Amino acid sequence: MPNSIEESPLYLIANPRSIAFFGASNNFSSMGTNLLMSLQAMGFGGVIYPVHPKEKQVKGLKAFLSVTDLPEAPDLAVIVLPTRIVNKTLEECGRKGIKRAIVVSGGFREIGGKGVDLEKDLVDIANRYDIHLLGPNCLGVANPHHKVNTTFIPSEGPPGFIGLASQSGSFITQIFEYLSRFDLGFSTAFSVGNEADLDIVDCMEYLGACPYTKVIALYIEGIKRGREFVEVAKLIAPRKPIVAYYIGGSETGRRAGFSHTGALAGPDQLYDSMFRQSGIIRAQSVSELFAFCWALGSLPKPEGSRVIIQTHSGGPGAAAADSCGRAGLDLPPLSKETIDKLTPFVPPTGSINNPVDITFSKNPMDYFFDIPRALLEEKNADMLMIYFLMPSQTIKRALVDMGLSEDQIIEQRTRLIEGQCKSMARLLRSYNKPVVGYTFHSPENPFIQGLMKQGIPVFEGPERAARVLEALVYYTNLNNTIVSSSKKSATPAQNG
Amino acid sequence: MPNSIEESPLYLIANPRSIAFFGASNNFSSMGTNLLMSLQAMGFGGVIYPVHPKEKQVKGLKAFLSVTDLPEAPDLAVIVLPTRIVNKTLEECGRKGIKRAIVVSGGFREIGGKGVDLEKDLVDIANRYDIHLLGPNCLGVANPHHKVNTTFIPSEGPPGFIGLASQSGSFITQIFEYLSRFDLGFSTAFSVGNEADLDIVDCMEYLGACPYTKVIALYIEGIKRGREFVEVAKLIAPRKPIVAYYIGGSETGRRAGFSHTGALAGPDQLYDSMFRQSGIIRAQSVSELFAFCWALGSLPKPEGSRVIIQTHSGGPGAAAADSCGRAGLDLPPLSKETIDKLTPFVPPTGSINNPVDITFSKNPMDYFFDIPRALLEEKNADMLMIYFLMPSQTIKRALVDMGLSEDQIIEQRTRLIEGQCKSMARLLRSYNKPVVGYTFHSPENPFIQGLMKQGIPVFEGPERAARVLEALVYYTNLNNTIVSSSKKSATPAQNG
Repeated sequence: MPNSIEESPLYLIANPRSIAFFGASNNFSSMGTNLLMSLQAMGFGGVIYPVHPKEKQVKGLKAFLSVTDLPEAPDLAVIVLPTRIVNKTLEECGRKGIKRAIVVSGGFREIGGKGVDLEKDLVDIANRYDIHLLGPNCLGVANPHHKVNTTFIPSEGPPGFIGLASQSGSFITQIFEYLSRFDLGFSTAFSVGNEADLDIVDCMEYLGACPYTKVIALYIEGIKRGREFVEVAKLIAPRKPIVAYYIGGSETGRRAGFSHTGALAGPDQLYDSMFRQSGIIRAQSVSELFAFCWALGSLPKPEGSRVIIQTHSGGPGAAAADSCGRAGLDLPPLSKETIDKLTPFVPPTGSINNPVDITFSKNPMDYFFDIPRALLEEKNADMLMIYFLMPSQTIKRALVDMGLSEDQIIEQRTRLIEGQCKSMARLLRSYNKPVVGYTFHSPENPFIQGLMKQGIPVFEGPERAARVLEALVYYTNLNNTIVSSSKKSATPAQNG
Repeated sequence: MPNSIEESPLYLIANPRSIAFFGASNNFSSMGTNLLMSLQAMGFGGVIYPVHPKEKQVKGLKAFLSVTDLPEAPDLAVIVLPTRIVNKTLEECGRKGIKRAIVVSGGFREIGGKGVDLEKDLVDIANRYDIHLLGPNCLGVANPHHKVNTTFIPSEGPPGFIGLASQSGSFITQIFEYLSRFDLGFSTAFSVGNEADLDIVDCMEYLGACPYTKVIALYIEGIKRGREFVEVAKLIAPRKPIVAYYIGGSETGRRAGFSHTGALAGPDQLYDSMFRQSGIIRAQSVSELFAFCWALGSLPKPEGSRVIIQTHSGGPGAAAADSCGRAGLDLPPLSKETIDKLTPFVPPTGSINNPVDITFSKNPMDYFFDIPRALLEEKNADMLMIYFLMPSQTIKRALVDMGLSEDQIIEQRTRLIEGQCKSMARLLRSYNKPVVGYTFHSPENPFIQGLMKQGIPVFEGPERAARVLEALVYYTNLNNTIVSSSKKSATPAQNG
């Protein structure tokens, strides 16, 4: 383990001051050009040296005929060239004194046969010149905090707290937009490709030390250095949650992973036990991977597995109760004290059980303040799960009825939503208990956006929300197990 | 079973010509007023008679002091009154000669104690006057084909093909927006509440006979008439798929369901076996319920369980392969014939296995036409699953590079997407094989919207898409079992 992030072999790959770029041209349909354009779109503050055999300028930058011509040995080389000239190019970079390279080009171990030899040769060159190599067959790195993005698609949205090490570049570049819908982003994301040199273990070490990373996500098709993987994860997990999505456990997943990155997968049980040993939480899908990271990276740890469900609709409440039960969570009865506190807010048709079903509320604002406050104060519960519904037409209907104009309505509604989300978030933060929302609204809905922007995670449907709480409890128990070595904890992977 | 839809006791509840409305006023914060406003917003073409003890006019309609004063006995009474005056009002409706009623008010069996007696009394009145009763403690009906909506939230989007019978009104009224995001809608949806008289079995019969309903969705907290449920479902399922989401199988779900509608739930296994006997497909969540309905109501039946995955990204391809494996689907190798057909379209870095991973394609249009055509012609496969990605910035980047203005870009992009989705849908329809998409784009993304509007279901992530294909295979096998009574089929419920 490096003592500081600067000691990581990945540090200057994720935070380069200067980059030699091979394979970009002025032809926008070439892969290399697109990668350079992503880097430029990000607003990279360092120097970029495009190397091109013919062009004088590439995408507005002065180009160089050969790496030998560069005025310095840059921190990093990014190579997006036809396979047959990659090794030769890396050798030239080595001679120039470049010590870090991202090889994006494919056609190595993953195609078998001569590709295997070619990759061996590539590693030999890297070793000979002391080059730290990411790839081949990868998309490199996205570090929005340093304004680096060598991947195919421009990064949207703000930098975030999720660190990713992925055996698929797509799960970085094609996920920017996905995350930004939830007001989330990557701290730093590595595409490791064939892992000829640097691998997922190195990335975990980097992300473990990275101050922007609050939670680590892993996309795994197969682990090469099993023992080191477990050792490193064990050191990181107690202070920074690690979530893994592993696809090699099914026969079809194993085969696909092998032809994708040449990964050597193992049976599900093996990985389950490896994850358990390491203190890693296993997700069952890409969207679950990021949902778990969202909550683990932003919410306090629960003290136990007791959830209160707050709803104003019976069906969504009952479905949530079922989801919590299936996720191994408990629904405690409310104490007399809490019931007394709630009585003024709940009409006779509402129910003061758990789920707390307000039904048609007298004052809709109670749902966002006085009711959750009473529920967060409940001594018998550790977590709160709230159903969010704000049908825009109903609000509009009310405002129209008050005689407001179209413009006034939009303004009023926006103000109403913003103020409400802010005050609610302030309330929730003042208690040290995890709170998650669930809804059937789109994440693009202004109300749901408002909640997310205030740091309240809101998921589609109760099942996802319950699984997320299960992951939080699992993580707390993991740590208690490490501390006390006594408590038993169930793995969320078993409740898929 | 009624011989025709007109014989169903629900027919004039879902298709009334005239409605007596109890409980609406000019106070927009009352429940009854909101329900009346939903009905008006829908553009109901029949006559509405608001009955109100004081108002002369209610929401622009002439109001009546008492049901006795109405100029006719309307087809339907909708009652949204305080519990204590509901029974008396139903009696008055009976005396007037009204033969159908929706009782929205709660406070009956679901609260226990005197509520149970009150409900018994309500049923006695209904029986005495030959009234078909939906509820109490329900939201009534939404039938966009007849422009009826008695629920809390106005119905958005076009009428659709999903028939719903639900023990939660929320899963109608709060799902309008959800469905419209996928260009889906209800054919007719019934909220059955406490099922004091008409129940979920009656609704199944109606929806089985309804010409607009292509697939039936059920939200179940507990079934009262088990034997009739199985008998009716068995008759309908071979020609119209039925999908059920059941929440009473966990202890927490059972308790919540009981306090919601007084439903008597049973263990999961009991319901699993009841669903299997009935030919019903079980979904594991609300969103899965509607995802299954989407595909079952709009795609051809697969001949077997062999899927081809088409992708241009390794990770999403490998994750899809894993999801298909876990869903019990097969990934056949491609025939030599198909490989030959694909060779011109796949660059050397692409892989002609299954998943078919095109990687960086020469001509992006091939991905939408020539490649899926070749894959649909493959004799060794029954279904196609396509990964959809169209990063808007990349297209924009390309168009900017071609020197187009902002306006031209928007126009070009819209035309490009529309044309592409249309031609692709035409191609897919010309083969009798189910095709589903998966993506990490938002359903609001113009490209994904374009595909959905052309009838191509697109799901978030490969897991959901694979589960949907599993449901299609399960339904085919069910029918083959019924016909041949030999083939074994796995229930998708077991692979949650």
